[in-house]
Order: sequence, then structure tokens, then C-alpha cells
Amino acid sequence: MNEICDIEMEGHLIDSLILTKALDKIMDMGGEFQIKTFRIGEKKNDTSYVQITVMGRDSIHLDQILLELHALGARLIEIEDAKTQIAPGEMVVPKGFYSTTNHSTFVRYGGSWVEVENNHMDCLIVLEDGRAICTPLGHIKKGDRVVVGTTGVKVVPPERPRQKTFFGFMSNEVSSERPSGEIVKQLAGEIISTKKSGGKIAVVCGPAVVHTGAAPALAQLIRDSYVDVLLAGNAVAVHDIERQLFGTSLGMNCSGSATSGGHRNHLYAISEIMASGSIKNAIDQGKLKGGIIYECINRGVPFILAGSIRDDGPLPEVITDIVKAKDAMEKALRGVDMTLMMSTMLHSIAVGNLLPSRVKTICVDINPSTVTKLMDRGTAQAIGLVTDIGIFLPRLAEEIDRMKSQEVSASCV
Amino acid sequence: MNEICDIEMEGHLIDSLILTKALDKIMDMGGEFQIKTFRIGEKKNDTSYVQITVMGRDSIHLDQILLELHALGARLIEIEDAKTQIAPGEMVVPKGFYSTTNHSTFVRYGGSWVEVENNHMDCLIVLEDGRAICTPLGHIKKGDRVVVGTTGVKVVPPERPRQKTFFGFMSNEVSSERPSGEIVKQLAGEIISTKKSGGKIAVVCGPAVVHTGAAPALAQLIRDSYVDVLLAGNAVAVHDIERQLFGTSLGMNCSGSATSGGHRNHLYAISEIMASGSIKNAIDQGKLKGGIIYECINRGVPFILAGSIRDDGPLPEVITDIVKAKDAMEKALRGVDMTLMMSTMLHSIAVGNLLPSRVKTICVDINPSTVTKLMDRGTAQAIGLVTDIGIFLPRLAEEIDRMKSQEVSASCV
Amino acid sequence: MNEICDIEMEGHLIDSLILTKALDKIMDMGGEFQIKTFRIGEKKNDTSYVQITVMGRDSIHLDQILLELHALGARLIEIEDAKTQIAPGEMVVPKGFYSTTNHSTFVRYGGSWVEVENNHMDCLIVLEDGRAICTPLGHIKKGDRVVVGTTGVKVVPPERPRQKTFFGFMSNEVSSERPSGEIVKQLAGEIISTKKSGGKIAVVCGPAVVHTGAAPALAQLIRDSYVDVLLAGNAVAVHDIERQLFGTSLGMNCSGSATSGGHRNHLYAISEIMASGSIKNAIDQGKLKGGIIYECINRGVPFILAGSIRDDGPLPEVITDIVKAKDAMEKALRGVDMTLMMSTMLHSIAVGNLLPSRVKTICVDINPSTVTKLMDRGTAQAIGLVTDIGIFLPRLAEEIDRMKSQEVSASCV
Amino acid sequence: MNEICDIEMEGHLIDSLILTKALDKIMDMGGEFQIKTFRIGEKKNDTSYVQITVMGRDSIHLDQILLELHALGARLIEIEDAKTQIAPGEMVVPKGFYSTTNHSTFVRYGGSWVEVENNHMDCLIVLEDGRAICTPLGHIKKGDRVVVGTTGVKVVPPERPRQKTFFGFMSNEVSSERPSGEIVKQLAGEIISTKKSGGKIAVVCGPAVVHTGAAPALAQLIRDSYVDVLLAGNAVAVHDIERQLFGTSLGMNCSGSATSGGHRNHLYAISEIMASGSIKNAIDQGKLKGGIIYECINRGVPFILAGSIRDDGPLPEVITDIVKAKDAMEKALRGVDMTLMMSTMLHSIAVGNLLPSRVKTICVDINPSTVTKLMDRGTAQAIGLVTDIGIFLPRLAEEIDRMKSQEVSASCV
Repeated sequence: MNEICDIEMEGHLIDSLILTKALDKIMDMGGEFQIKTFRIGEKKNDTSYVQITVMGRDSIHLDQILLELHALGARLIEIEDAKTQIAPGEMVVPKGFYSTTNHSTFVRYGGSWVEVENNHMDCLIVLEDGRAICTPLGHIKKGDRVVVGTTGVKVVPPERPRQKTFFGFMSNEVSSERPSGEIVKQLAGEIISTKKSGGKIAVVCGPAVVHTGAAPALAQLIRDSYVDVLLAGNAVAVHDIERQLFGTSLGMNCSGSATSGGHRNHLYAISEIMASGSIKNAIDQGKLKGGIIYECINRGVPFILAGSIRDDGPLPEVITDIVKAKDAMEKALRGVDMTLMMSTMLHSIAVGNLLPSRVKTICVDINPSTVTKLMDRGTAQAIGLVTDIGIFLPRLAEEIDRMKSQEVSASCV
Repeated sequence: MNEICDIEMEGHLIDSLILTKALDKIMDMGGEFQIKTFRIGEKKNDTSYVQITVMGRDSIHLDQILLELHALGARLIEIEDAKTQIAPGEMVVPKGFYSTTNHSTFVRYGGSWVEVENNHMDCLIVLEDGRAICTPLGHIKKGDRVVVGTTGVKVVPPERPRQKTFFGFMSNEVSSERPSGEIVKQLAGEIISTKKSGGKIAVVCGPAVVHTGAAPALAQLIRDSYVDVLLAGNAVAVHDIERQLFGTSLGMNCSGSATSGGHRNHLYAISEIMASGSIKNAIDQGKLKGGIIYECINRGVPFILAGSIRDDGPLPEVITDIVKAKDAMEKALRGVDMTLMMSTMLHSIAVGNLLPSRVKTICVDINPSTVTKLMDRGTAQAIGLVTDIGIFLPRLAEEIDRMKSQEVSASCV
Repeated sequence: MNEICDIEMEGHLIDSLILTKALDKIMDMGGEFQIKTFRIGEKKNDTSYVQITVMGRDSIHLDQILLELHALGARLIEIEDAKTQIAPGEMVVPKGFYSTTNHSTFVRYGGSWVEVENNHMDCLIVLEDGRAICTPLGHIKKGDRVVVGTTGVKVVPPERPRQKTFFGFMSNEVSSERPSGEIVKQLAGEIISTKKSGGKIAVVCGPAVVHTGAAPALAQLIRDSYVDVLLAGNAVAVHDIERQLFGTSLGMNCSGSATSGGHRNHLYAISEIMASGSIKNAIDQGKLKGGIIYECINRGVPFILAGSIRDDGPLPEVITDIVKAKDAMEKALRGVDMTLMMSTMLHSIAVGNLLPSRVKTICVDINPSTVTKLMDRGTAQAIGLVTDIGIFLPRLAEEIDRMKSQEVSASCV
Repeated sequence: MNEICDIEMEGHLIDSLILTKALDKIMDMGGEFQIKTFRIGEKKNDTSYVQITVMGRDSIHLDQILLELHALGARLIEIEDAKTQIAPGEMVVPKGFYSTTNHSTFVRYGGSWVEVENNHMDCLIVLEDGRAICTPLGHIKKGDRVVVGTTGVKVVPPERPRQKTFFGFMSNEVSSERPSGEIVKQLAGEIISTKKSGGKIAVVCGPAVVHTGAAPALAQLIRDSYVDVLLAGNAVAVHDIERQLFGTSLGMNCSGSATSGGHRNHLYAISEIMASGSIKNAIDQGKLKGGIIYECINRGVPFILAGSIRDDGPLPEVITDIVKAKDAMEKALRGVDMTLMMSTMLHSIAVGNLLPSRVKTICVDINPSTVTKLMDRGTAQAIGLVTDIGIFLPRLAEEIDRMKSQEVSASCV
């Protein structure tokens, strides 16, 4: 162990697992450490502070360790401005570029700390006019000033809430053996309180929401202003419209029986919208009178329909270029406080990639592997519920209704 | 192809897949066939009749094919009495013994056909005093007259109902993308109509019913006389009693939080029952005042608690010897018309093994592999529902209630 | 039952389930039937012929039934030319349009039968210059002559092979309890014999192929000319290139440990390719020296990389517009005889939608729901293997190698 | 917060998560804390020490918190002897009994610390003749001196190893996206080094090991002395014997095809053993010449076959009373250092319940829910591998072979 370096960390280091992860990482990577200073937060709301001397075999090894520690919130003790290099080409990165986490991040720049804008995981930081902008690789232009190394970059991982909450820290196990009825109530409470405090809620959903009969419940949540942005694909919109126009989804009627002509209604639904020119026109013409997308348009709730290679049609509102679709999703998700992901692996993981770690995220799917993959891909804050969306979502809508009317009657007294 | 033999089949051969399966089997096994006579049922309710000459490479090959065809309902054209041999020892079978299917089966005996009693899969047929008794290998005694070969044995596979029903023929796919709310209604309707026509319903369940908060719904169904027999294990009973006595299951309270002392309440629950001597005594002493087992005892609904190597305790009512437990289950299941299996792979498959194929069987589990395995193990009549029992069962109980009260109010007019 | 109509069907009606499905469908839909003529194929290779009078409540009901029977291969006895209508607009369909199945289809046109070109499911048939062209809704132009109704359209569903094969008829269950080692051998045999008879094999794969360490095995299969077309997404290519350039995939090294800098290598890999301008250039410059995509380019094997909203970058070869990607996939899949789908739900279902039912399709995934959904979405010919691609694919490549060298040594004698 | 109490903890408090869990627990339960003393281990191998003042609303609340902290390794600062009470009846526990964890536990008794014998989870501690014996509820006798409360009881949770290992701390996620080939090598290395250091290995397996064709690989591992005890059920033994006697398992032959007579071979296998009187006799008589159980008997490897309600037969060696079976399993598992669980949920969880947390545990199953449930039920040290046992186990046996012969040839030089 020839190379050493001093780092410091501050915050709820013990209960938020930050110090544990840092020491684990050093040991896992074959390094050594010596704790120089440790001031533990004595009471629940006090923060702790630690200075650690980290040792590596050589400077490359030490740098690898430091890079990992950095993502956990460690910083070098000497404070300098961030270093940058110029991107040599379109989508070409300078050596040693800094790759973002999904935690709040600050860049030291002209002696002061600037928060990185729209920060999300696996992007680069571009400095421009005193701003630090989180930039996906696909948007790097020749000449961009890209942050390299970790000097002058500060990461602030989320900390454990000081009391137990629904979106608890470390409670992100995937289990199907929970009292589902009770969980519905807690989630309903979270949704109501998020909206009450002015929060913004995004819903991400897959076609199973329509197939399992949960579409009316989602439409109701949109109508009642619990949804601020909807992210889905062509299939959700087509099934939803098919159900409105013909009472089927993929040719299956409400009682789950296939009706005559099967998939034809799916194509008819698209054709009807094409004949009108757009979903919006179809509403204006009185053709489409309800459903998920109808409620979005009617209430002015923004919705992004991103294309995929499974799409029939697609509908005019669908963004068929996936680079543009991803950009639109990223913009729509800015400022979101809570995300409800339902029955879609593709869209859930794509959205998870775009979310800061501070966004409360709940992923509802009957397939536990959707939740497992979402968390494997870095959306570690997600809470997984393994349940049947077809019964879960109607119960959730009912519960929100019930809570709301109780509140109203309570406030009348 | 040197060996030939003529067989005949009768019934709804085409739409019930019987003829298809027979010809497939001959081809899969490398045999040949020639259809000698075929009278197709011209209208929906007419049966068909076919005579087929089956050809095999040699007599062993032909016998192998005939054995398989027999289980599909084929029989030799010449009618003879069944052949028997004497079992040479306890649990020792004569060569060539006849192994039962789960379809209705008749044995020709003294010139007339006798129905096999308590028939279920993978057993032997013992002839005794003019009766043909389905006997598990474990109950074969030295000297038993055991049916060998297929001569004089007739199998009657279930036929496709003449119209679409919930328990449809061939519809036993496992899918999680069905309109769950609608399925609840259809199942509620089936349960009510089964009971109205004097049918007997068995419920098989695992501990997740209690963990997910569905126990009160099951208790209600028992109280309202929709359950005629309950099959479960020690864990269901202990969790149910723990919830009644301490408000927890495995130390987890109703809102899904672990409470202090964790698993201790589980052990306390057993200890309390032991102190009383039995669950029944605990009820008589006023200790246990509700729950699944309480309702069973209170309403005189028979329940079998079969032991497993995961059990704590176990409770006094648990049958710890698995041979005795299986026998008790078999007896309790006699005459059952419908079985509702919920959240248990072990008990579902064990019960499936004991059921005739005519019993309407529905298997509800959040894990699709439970249903897949149940059908793989021969319970081909099972309908699988991949859903969350914690929301599904309360909805089912609600729906049954609603339908019942509608009926009552309708009949009042 | 006031409306009646006579239909006829021909082929291996019994063992290929065709007649069973037809009668089931009539009964499920509440119709009646009377079989007028039935000539059963007496021997294994003889076909059967049936004429059925179908009855419906009214002409709409009867039409609904006939539409379903048509997809099963039934046709009206009177033969007329197909009827067409003009598409009124871009992506707008005429009322009553004919929606394709994935079975071989013929259109009667000027008195003779013309086979539908590039036929796959859920499309329309456009007649043009004596040709009948399968056309997705997205490609319908104003003025296209679109086939409507089922008159003059003949569907030929696949028939059961006359002996047992790996890609057996009706054997498409999803089970994880098969002798995996044996299945590897059978599949290896199928791949070798498909290539020997001049067949074309497509491989569809997801990033788990790289993560689980199976990439070298796939690269070998491409190098040894067992793959004729590769369909995948950006992630597969990036992970493959990342592994070649840096020895990691998503920052995880070959032994499954996360290395320093994590996801950064993923972005570096893209950046390196961008700096070269394309994957091909990177190969020409000697930067990329092996792997899945390298072997494709080196051997001239066409590959389609379709974009998705989860993509980083994406790489220059990725088709980011999903409509264009789907078109490219459809063209690449023409003439394919066998498709091996591995560890991707999105691409497997998308490819399944584009395949005729005659293409032997095997779907390998550790998650049984991928296979279930693929079949639910109409790719009923798929065989599902629930296994671990990371061990399965290397074993498959080994086995193919072994079989080939045995053949060689056998032919040397 | 009216009640306070001082506790202390010692060890690798930070990196083994012990302190984090303790503070989390206090906060989750609504308590407060103040850290009085904290001495952090400065270097990797130094332990830390902490004294914490815990505050609860009242004495009951404080006791609940202390009970949970105790299971994490906390102890009161004042040291007293453990308190006991007399069990009032058979399987009846005294109020406030101490319920064991699966961590090493010591009881203070006559002024000195005594280690609890055969400690495993959810049992009681009985003091007798200077010994502290872990006793399941089912074995509590009237008059037993049972430990109550946590006074004088010390729990030592496992600590994080000081470097990265296969059985790493905190790495117990369930993922199917790992490089399976590499994992086989690492596990092979662990098995070899466990045996080399004189360790004892238990194998727990379900019938899928036989169905998927992995039985010869397991038989080889037993023959080569890598297995010290085998735990399974009746089905494994019957399938194994059926395969030896008839080449089938449940009537399915090695190539995965059902053969004639199906399940009959299963019953024949049992009958053959019954005719011999026992499996051992059948071996002595030369009837049974290979397979899993044959190797066990031949090499003197103890095996426990525990009965379940799904059993046919059962075989004479099967313990049909589940209480006796569990006792036999517990005895057989004493002193085990590593457990390999394969393709069985019932037996894996049952065995997990009986294992101390220090036993390296690996659970291999294609169904991720088996691993999830195992960990949910308290076997938190288990590593999950989601893979196909039919290919995995043969690869593992090959790899062990290869490593062994390399060693041999290396040592020859």
C-alpha cells in the first residue's frame, strides 16, 4: 500500500449506510483504511463527520477506490475547482470524464458550489456560462467543456428519514407476502399527502393496465388531478382507445373473452384516430369520449407516448424516434416528486434511468423480476409491490376517494 | 408393423380432443393406424364413434401404445372381464398392474361394469366383494386382488361442456393479463351456483392467506357456509391463531410492520393452545374468539391440518404422520365438486393428486409456477389465476355477499 | 338460429386440432353446427375432408363465427374472387378489412389463387399488379386496394408433423423440469440439420447474453456460419463492445464483480465507436477485434440494431426510428426457417409478430413469463426453454462443435 | 421519552452493519438515542465499541426496543446471570421466554458465559446441568428451566469478512444476470477449499435434480466425497431409483419424452424396494447399482428422507412423522459448514430454519421466489443463484474434477 489520500464525509453516516458502504468498498477493492477523525452524531438529528486515510497499492488502484468512494458522497479534503476537458467530437468523451450518479450533485466552479441541473444517472456534466448541466452522452457536442475526475464534484446521497415512512430507507425488498389491503391504504395516503404539499406525480404504465381492467381507475385518478404526467407507449393508448370505441382490448372484451375479429379492433382503433388526424382531433370530433388519454387531454395533463418495435400503427401522438422520445421523457419528468410505475419493464427502467434518487418511486408488477431489474439498473430507491394491477389499482382509486371524502366531511364539522 | 389390434372410442371425440390425442399418441410412439369406422356426431349434442386398427412393431410396442390409448378412453372391442393378480407383499405390486388415471373408471367384473370407488390418479384397483376400490400403493396388502393390464377396464375422460363455462375445457392457460375484476365476479357466480345446486366446496390454502390480510375474508366465507372442507397445514392455523390472539402473523402486524419480539408471538400462539390442550378447548375456554379455524370448529366444517418439516410446534390438531394425513385428506375430499386452492404449492399438488378430474379446480397464486406444476403433475383440469390473494379474496367475499343480497332483494319482489 | 352457411375444411383435421378448434369456436360463440360430410383420412398420411353447416342467431352473429373459422382454415364452399375496397387515407382502413394471421395465406384474384407475400400477423392484404402483399397498417397509403371480408381468402394453418420432432405440434408448454442436457443435444441437432438443408437461422438476443458470459459462444456460432441474421438492440452491441474493449459489461467484469467506474466503461465504449464513426470503422482501424458484432461484420452476417428508450448513446448503427427499425427487421427476417430467441422479451415479441407460423421458433429465457407472453401474443409455434443462457449457450456451442467433428470424422472413414 | 437504558456493542460495528441496524431499529420503533461513547476501529482489523443511551416512551416501549437491539448483538452494560422460569407444561412456555436467533449465543450462568448448544432460530434456551441447550417449542417439557428476557444473554452476529469472498456479506441479492460460468468456478473453488480445510458439506435437493438430468453429477459428487450429509424427500429417492431401474423419472425418459405407462414406473420402483424390504437390501441384492442414494449408502454418507403429503409409497427409509424427521434433520446438520440447496422450496426453508447463521448457504433454483422466501424466513446468509440445475450441476461437477486434477498434476511437479 504505497499511495494514500485523505477523504472526508459528513451526514447521517451510520444509519444511512454511507460509512458502511465506504468501508466495504475499500475492503472489497483490496485497499486499506485508517480512520483519522470520527465525530458521531450523538442524537437522532445530529450528523456525523469522518476523515479517513485511504490506501491503495499504487496511484491507479487508489484512484479507482476514490472514484467509487466519491459516488458515495466522499470528497477530498483539499477543495479545488472541478477540472474540465473539451469534448473532441459529437458524442465523443474526453478521457477520465465524470459519470453522474442519480444523487444530488454539486460542482465547484469559480470557487463556489453550483448544483448540477436535471441530474440523473450515467450522464456527463457540461459547464457552460456558470451553469453545470447534466448531459447524456448522446447530446455531447464537439467543444463542450466536460467535467473530468472527481475533484471539485460533491455528491449528496439521500439520507434515511428520521422516522419510519412508506418510502422507507433500506426497505426496498420485493415481497409478495405483505398485507396488500393495508399497503393500498398507505400508498393512497402518500399520494394524497404528496399532492396536498404541492408535489408532482408521474405515472408510468404498460398495456396490462388496460387488459386487466384497471383503465377506468387510472382515468379517474387523472380526472381527479392525482396525475401530473403520464409516460407510456403506443400500446397503452391504442388499447385504451380500442376499449372506448369497441369495448375490447386486443379483441378481448371486458369479461376476458376473445371476441370475433380479434386483433382487428386494435387496428380499427388506430385507423379511426388516423382518419381524424390525431387523438386530440378525435376528441374534438366527439369520437373519443373517455379513457386514460381522453382524461389527459381533457385535463391538460402532459403525456409522452414513446415508440417501440412492437407497435402497430403507431398513433400520430407517438414519438417514434427513441432519442427524441427519451428527451421528451426527461423533460416531462423534471420536478417530479413521486413516480408510480405499473406493469411495464421497458418504460419503468427507462424512466428510472431519468429520475434523481430523491424521487419517491413505487413499482407495481405481478412479475417480481421487473422490480428486481429496476433496482439492479440503479433505481435503488424504488419500492416494489408484487400484486395484480387489475384489482390493486381500482382498490387504490377507491381508497383515495374514501380518504378524500372523509377529509371533506371532517373539515365540514 | 407386425402386430395389430382394434380399439373403439365413443363420445364427443372431436371437440373434447379425445381422438386428436389418441392419433397423436400413436404417431408420437412410432405406431401406425387405420380408421375402420367413423360415425361423427352431426349436431352439437351428438356423440361420435370410431373404430381404429392400431399397428405396432411387435407385441411389446403395441401393448405400450394400447396402454396409453386406454388412459384416453379407448377400449378393446372384444369385451372380457378384468384380469387380476394377487399382491405378493405389503406395498408390493404384481407385474403389469393397472395404474389409475384421475378420470371416472369402470371395471368389468363377473360380466358387468362396476365403477371404481374413490378413484384418483396413480393408484391401483383392488377387487373385493364385488367392489372395485382405488387403492394407493401404500395401502396394498399381501393377498389383495389387484387389476392387471387394461382388459376389462374402461376410462371415461371428461368431455367438453356443450357451452362456454368459467371452468372451460382447454382454457387452462396461466395468464396474468386477464380482467381480474371480472374474473372475481365469474368465480363468485360459480361458487354461489355450486352451493345452490347442493355441491361441496373444498378450500386448500397456505399461510400467505393470513400474511396478506385475507384471513377475515376466508373466515367470512366459512361462516357463510361456502366452504365444506378446509385443507391446510400447521402454519395456516398458527398464523391465524396468532393474529387472533396478538394481532400479528409471524410477528408482523396488520400494517405489515414487524413488531417487537418477532417470531415469539408465533411460539406463544402454539403455547397458548398447548396450555388449553387443543384449539377446540381454547375456543370453549373463550381464549380464541375468531378466525379461520374458529369458524371451522364453530360451524362444524371439517378441517385437515397436515404436518410438514417446516412446522413449529406443531398444534395438537395437526396430523404429523404424513401417511395418515394423506389418508385423512383423501377421505375429506370425497364427494367434493369444486376446489379452491390458494397460495400453496405443496398442499395444492397434494390435493390435486387426490382429486378426480371431474372436480372443478381453481388455483390462485401470485407465482405462476405453482399453477404450471400443478398441471404438470396431472391436475389438468385446474384453472390458474395469477393474482394477489391479499386483494383477490376480500374482493371475492364482497362480490359473493353482493350477489347474495341482490338475489334476496330480487326474490322479495 | 336463423342464418346458416356451409363451409369446408381439408387436411389433417383431427390430429392437427383444426376440426376440434373449429367446433369449439362455434360452441364457444353460441352457434350450432351440423356435419354434412366427413371423410376421415384412414391412414397416417391421408388427409381428411369435412363440410359443416354453421348456424348463427342472425347474419352478424354468423359472420362473426365465420370470421373466426376462417382463421382456422375454413372456407366457404362457393368460390369467388376476394373483395377489395380502397383505403380512404394514409393509415386509414376500409370497413371490414381482412386482418392477417401468421399462417400461409392465399387470395383468389382473377380466378386463380395467389400466395400473400411476406405474410405475418395483424396486417392487411393489398392487391397490386396481380400480387397480394401483406401490408402493416402503418404502410397503408391512400388509394391502396385492400382485401375486405374473408371471401376468396384461404388460410392454411400448419399441420402436425407425421412423426415426433423437437419442434413438435402442441408441445409448446413452458416447463423448467426437463432434462436440459438432452435438450441441448436435440437443439444442436436441429440447428445443424437446418443449416445442412440450406435453411436460414435468425438469432434474437438481449443484453443478458453478454452479462451472463455467453457472448463468446454466440460469437463462435456466428463465426461458424450458424447464424444468418442477428436482431438485437443498442445494449447488446454496446455491452459486447465494452467487453471487447474493457473486459466489462456495464462495468461488471467477467467474474461478476463491479469494477471501478462502473457504468463509465459503457459510455466509453460508445464514445470510442463514435470517435471512429461507426462499428465498422472501429474494426477497420483495428480498435475492435472480436465479439458478436465483430463476427457479424466480419462474416457479412446482416444485423439489425433497433433502438429503445433505455438506450445510452445510441451507437451509429442503431436504427433509432422504431417504424424504420421494424421495417428493417421484417425484411431481414424474410425467408428465415428457424429463430432462436434469447433473453429478451421486447425483441422476442416484436420478432414473433413478424414471423410466419411455419418458422421454427425457440425462446430461451430464465423468466417463464417471456415465453408465456410470446405465445399469448400469437407466436403459438414457439417452444419455450426456461434455462440459464449463461450456461446453456456455451453448452449448445460445444455440442454443435462436437456433433460437427463427429460427422467429419465419420465421413472420413 | 421517560425510560432510559444504557447498552453497549462491540465488533466491526460499521462495516458489518450492526450499528446501522441498531440505530435504524430505534428510529423505526419511535425511540430516541444518545451515543455516549464511540471508539471506532481505526484500521481494517480493529473492532469498534459503542455505548448508547436508548430512550422509550415507557418501560414497555423501552423493553420492546431493547429486545430487538439484543438480537443485533447489543447487551445491557450491567452484567447479570440469565433469568429463568419453569415451563408449566408440555410445549407450554413461560411468559417472556427468550426466543433464539440463528447467531452464536451465550448465556451467563453462575457468573460465566456458556455457549448455547445446537443453536438455531425460533427456539427456547433450556438450562440444565451447567449447559444451555437450544430447544424447539415441540420439545419443551414440563419443569424445564427456560431462559426469559434478555438479561445475561449475549448474541454475536456474523461479521463481514475482512476481504471479498464468494459468500460475501451483504451480497445476498437474487439476480439471474450474473456470469454463470464464472460463478460455477468460484463455487467449485469454495467446495474444494471447504473440504480441504476439513469442513462438512450438506446437500439439500428436490426432485428436479433428477428430472433435469443432474442426478449423475450429484451421484459423482457424493462418490468423490464432497457431500457429508444429504437431505431430501421421498420423491428424490424414488425418482433416482426409478431412473436406475427403468431409465425414467416419473415415466419421462432421459430425452424428456413420456414413455408408455407413465407414472407406473414410479410405483414399480417403490414396489421393488418394498419387495426387498429397504433400499439398502436392494443394493445388497444387486438390484440397485447406482444413483444418488446408492452412492450415499455405499460411501456411508448419512441421508435423511423426510416425508410429505405428496409422497407415493413412501419408501421404507422415509421418516413419515414430520416431528421425527425434523429432529433427524437437525441432528444431521450439526457441525455443517456449508449447505448447498437445490431446487426445493420446502426442504430449503426447513433446513434454513435449522442452520446457524455462520453456515455458508447457497440456494440454487430456477425460481427466484425460492431464494426470496428462504431469506424472508430468516436465512439471511443465503446466496441465491437463479439458474438451471440441469446444466449447472453437471458443470459444477466437471469443474471440481478439473480443479482437482490440476491440483494433482501441480503437486506432482
